[in-house]
Amino acid sequence: MDQFRVLIDSDDEKGLVYKISTIFYEYGLNILSNNEFVDKINGKFFMRSVIEGDFDSDNLKKSLFDSLPKSSNIEVIKPAKKNIIIMVTKEMHALGDILIRHEAGELDANILGVISNYDELESLVNKFDIPYTTISHKDLDRDAHEKKILECLSTYKDIDYIVLAKYMRILTPKFVQVYEDKIINIHHSFLPAFIGANPYKQAYERGVKIIGATAHFVNNNLDEGPIIAQEVINVNHSYSWKDMQKSGRDVEKIVLSHALKLALEDRIFVHANKTVIF
Amino acid sequence: MDQFRVLIDSDDEKGLVYKISTIFYEYGLNILSNNEFVDKINGKFFMRSVIEGDFDSDNLKKSLFDSLPKSSNIEVIKPAKKNIIIMVTKEMHALGDILIRHEAGELDANILGVISNYDELESLVNKFDIPYTTISHKDLDRDAHEKKILECLSTYKDIDYIVLAKYMRILTPKFVQVYEDKIINIHHSFLPAFIGANPYKQAYERGVKIIGATAHFVNNNLDEGPIIAQEVINVNHSYSWKDMQKSGRDVEKIVLSHALKLALEDRIFVHANKTVIF
Amino acid sequence: MDQFRVLIDSDDEKGLVYKISTIFYEYGLNILSNNEFVDKINGKFFMRSVIEGDFDSDNLKKSLFDSLPKSSNIEVIKPAKKNIIIMVTKEMHALGDILIRHEAGELDANILGVISNYDELESLVNKFDIPYTTISHKDLDRDAHEKKILECLSTYKDIDYIVLAKYMRILTPKFVQVYEDKIINIHHSFLPAFIGANPYKQAYERGVKIIGATAHFVNNNLDEGPIIAQEVINVNHSYSWKDMQKSGRDVEKIVLSHALKLALEDRIFVHANKTVIF
Amino acid sequence: MDQFRVLIDSDDEKGLVYKISTIFYEYGLNILSNNEFVDKINGKFFMRSVIEGDFDSDNLKKSLFDSLPKSSNIEVIKPAKKNIIIMVTKEMHALGDILIRHEAGELDANILGVISNYDELESLVNKFDIPYTTISHKDLDRDAHEKKILECLSTYKDIDYIVLAKYMRILTPKFVQVYEDKIINIHHSFLPAFIGANPYKQAYERGVKIIGATAHFVNNNLDEGPIIAQEVINVNHSYSWKDMQKSGRDVEKIVLSHALKLALEDRIFVHANKTVIF
Repeated sequence: MDQFRVLIDSDDEKGLVYKISTIFYEYGLNILSNNEFVDKINGKFFMRSVIEGDFDSDNLKKSLFDSLPKSSNIEVIKPAKKNIIIMVTKEMHALGDILIRHEAGELDANILGVISNYDELESLVNKFDIPYTTISHKDLDRDAHEKKILECLSTYKDIDYIVLAKYMRILTPKFVQVYEDKIINIHHSFLPAFIGANPYKQAYERGVKIIGATAHFVNNNLDEGPIIAQEVINVNHSYSWKDMQKSGRDVEKIVLSHALKLALEDRIFVHANKTVIF
Repeated sequence: MDQFRVLIDSDDEKGLVYKISTIFYEYGLNILSNNEFVDKINGKFFMRSVIEGDFDSDNLKKSLFDSLPKSSNIEVIKPAKKNIIIMVTKEMHALGDILIRHEAGELDANILGVISNYDELESLVNKFDIPYTTISHKDLDRDAHEKKILECLSTYKDIDYIVLAKYMRILTPKFVQVYEDKIINIHHSFLPAFIGANPYKQAYERGVKIIGATAHFVNNNLDEGPIIAQEVINVNHSYSWKDMQKSGRDVEKIVLSHALKLALEDRIFVHANKTVIF
Repeated sequence: MDQFRVLIDSDDEKGLVYKISTIFYEYGLNILSNNEFVDKINGKFFMRSVIEGDFDSDNLKKSLFDSLPKSSNIEVIKPAKKNIIIMVTKEMHALGDILIRHEAGELDANILGVISNYDELESLVNKFDIPYTTISHKDLDRDAHEKKILECLSTYKDIDYIVLAKYMRILTPKFVQVYEDKIINIHHSFLPAFIGANPYKQAYERGVKIIGATAHFVNNNLDEGPIIAQEVINVNHSYSWKDMQKSGRDVEKIVLSHALKLALEDRIFVHANKTVIF
Repeated sequence: MDQFRVLIDSDDEKGLVYKISTIFYEYGLNILSNNEFVDKINGKFFMRSVIEGDFDSDNLKKSLFDSLPKSSNIEVIKPAKKNIIIMVTKEMHALGDILIRHEAGELDANILGVISNYDELESLVNKFDIPYTTISHKDLDRDAHEKKILECLSTYKDIDYIVLAKYMRILTPKFVQVYEDKIINIHHSFLPAFIGANPYKQAYERGVKIIGATAHFVNNNLDEGPIIAQEVINVNHSYSWKDMQKSGRDVEKIVLSHALKLALEDRIFVHANKTVIF
């Protein structure tokens, strides 16, 4: 018997669960897990079910579509490896963590390639037989640089997610719109604190006692996209900002990999610049 | 319109959600929140819904009862203040935290009374106009002492929970059976580490770097009942066991009050010596 | 034998520890604990020692003063209860936590009185036989209101710290300058995120996955003083901002009480709008 | 100017800091950082200083040795890469984390080689040009297997630490004594809870709400050596023990790498089966 993930979001109205569970029942499905959330303020309903059964997934989707409100988004997904591109600059820790998880079979993903504006990490990536493309931004304006990256991306088919594993350049809205809700970034602060450049230096100067990292989707504005995951660690007066940066690496990589896993398992809904995560 | 909490646990079988949501639909209910969990290993289904509507709760319960498997436990609860008894010895922090929350209206509970084997905390409790009964264990064997406590408890009607807020004496199985899944204890360690007496001393001697506290139901064996909530704090070599004890108080009181709130909001299922918490 | 806390901060230079430990040795002192920190960027040296011995503390202070650089601040403090004033508005949790700790003997402090712009918390404070003064801001401009508070404060002698336990009004620089590094505030966010009004609402709207609280000294600008302590808790999409507010109370009260204890134990140095905490 | 780490532990007596700081002063040293701890119960003094200056380290050690009690252990260490051996079985995450950190230059260590009782991880290790030796335990009793490992170890010179990165076999006291306080293990539980085999299964069965990992030195008894670092994560009823195992990997690798860094930076003292960590 096959397993599927059913993802539904819809304007909320009475009877949604009844309608969905009736269809599941008529198809003779086992419900392996089920999560629901109603956002009362925005009047939205979210549901993620893992189901098992002997059925045609297109038919199921059609039945759900016929029964639910027109506003509904309905996905019936057969779990499979998703295709990801990783973008980096020079830092190794976040990329390395993903590579090792990939090698260990922890991630349900194919890493199609790694793109960087520097070649520092090429030898590491090559160890794992993954294509590495250096696209230097030297002597290029932002648009010209992004155009080259988009060209490179267009050579890959069916990209599900682009993971910015400490890619240290701002992406323009034009670039970002092409991959809405598909670009996952790790920001090295506990957003919304310390937006922008060198958050560890900002944190040091403010004298905070806790620092953190935030994984989020990149939409329009830098560092302002929907937050997926955050984590923090304690620091104290004895930390220079370089010490904070070193200590911060561990949360950065854990939070980014955690967010990526949530995405690969189809656990994230995005609505109103926020995430609902099951 | 009235709000109700519906709690269902049952042997798992296909169609449970369909049956329940059909009945909810037929009664014209709004589902305000809904949580489900299937324990595959034990073949058990758990569900907690908060519903709203204009209906007779006894009728709803009967409809659910007629539709669901005979193994089901079904509760339709109108949210109301629950009656609690607090038992203490000499330490003030956990009791004090509950008293302040009660005073602030944070707890959906009536504190019927406080029972202690010492009179140290009487003046504090009296400030809040709550009856305090000292039942000394001096010159009494365990059975005789517990008999007196049970007599005192029998003077209170409809006790929902007994909260052991650092009650430092072991309760016998005989006592505990009278209030199965109704006695909430705070153990001052990260169970199952450091069962028994003076866990902070044990933690100090083992040289751990983290200490914790555990709130759990008290059934048969001391410190082995179903765990409701746990929390930890960091310590280091500079902590004496008295320092650990002092620092531990904060997690003790927070964890106990947190567990009590979960109980008061009917969020805890107990099965197979474990808790399912929604 | 008496115990003393020796606090020294000074411009950093070679031989400071040698000079101090020579004097300690000459006075025949036992060093019970000793913490040092050199802030290389600002060229500052900080030291806190707990010492024991049979000596005249004024003489010791003089010896240190003669030996150390002119820039040094030197304090030799005999541990004793400090005098505190608590200011509140209407919320009970942070005040209640301090009152219970005080009652339990956990705090090395005398609570001289509680001042509020409302009378909601008077009955709670009166239970503990502590004076409560309501100074309403109704029909008063900010200056006039603060003048009345300052008058009230002037009736108390030797105030060591003013604790803002959810005092929900902004204090002007004029007020604050009178009590530099003596006013401890709890801000209900993880500063510097969500400065200003209703941080929980801001946090909800930003969709963060972690919320926190920050205890800090109040100097010139609101929410920008030296941070003493911070703590966080996890939240998720199911939290309304009111849920965040409720959950946040626990960290608020724990962090504020923790910061107060650090102050009462003379563990905090303030320099360059940051704290060094031993 | 050279930097050195000075590590001193000694029976505690009056004047130790005076004596040490006098010698530092006479040698004209800069003290970059300084940590002290007095274990009053065991009457022990611990100190770690980072110093800078133009001096002969053997002379400094001799001067300290002449001045301090005979019980003292004194080390004057010039920071340099330490030599480590990693032992593994089949799991990749902890090993992978160390390899990436090593590659990134985060660890002040040479990885001399990796030894395993299986060959599963050979291809990963070979990517990094590090020797991998498979020493199967098949058809060998414990002594014969360990003898072969000891022989392999004897081919490496100057091993500073052996890191058990999920090496899933018990080492005998005979083996362990050869490398006292030099073998760092990661145990996949929050010790002392769940000593022994499959701690995640034990944790699942006990129904805990928090799981953890513990890095410790391996001395005589399994899982009972001095604890270096611990960390925890929250779990709930929805976690199978396999889910706990998966989630636990992140804390396992972070805690082990953290403990290794502390060791490489000479920050750990071991005394009375506990660690003092600066």
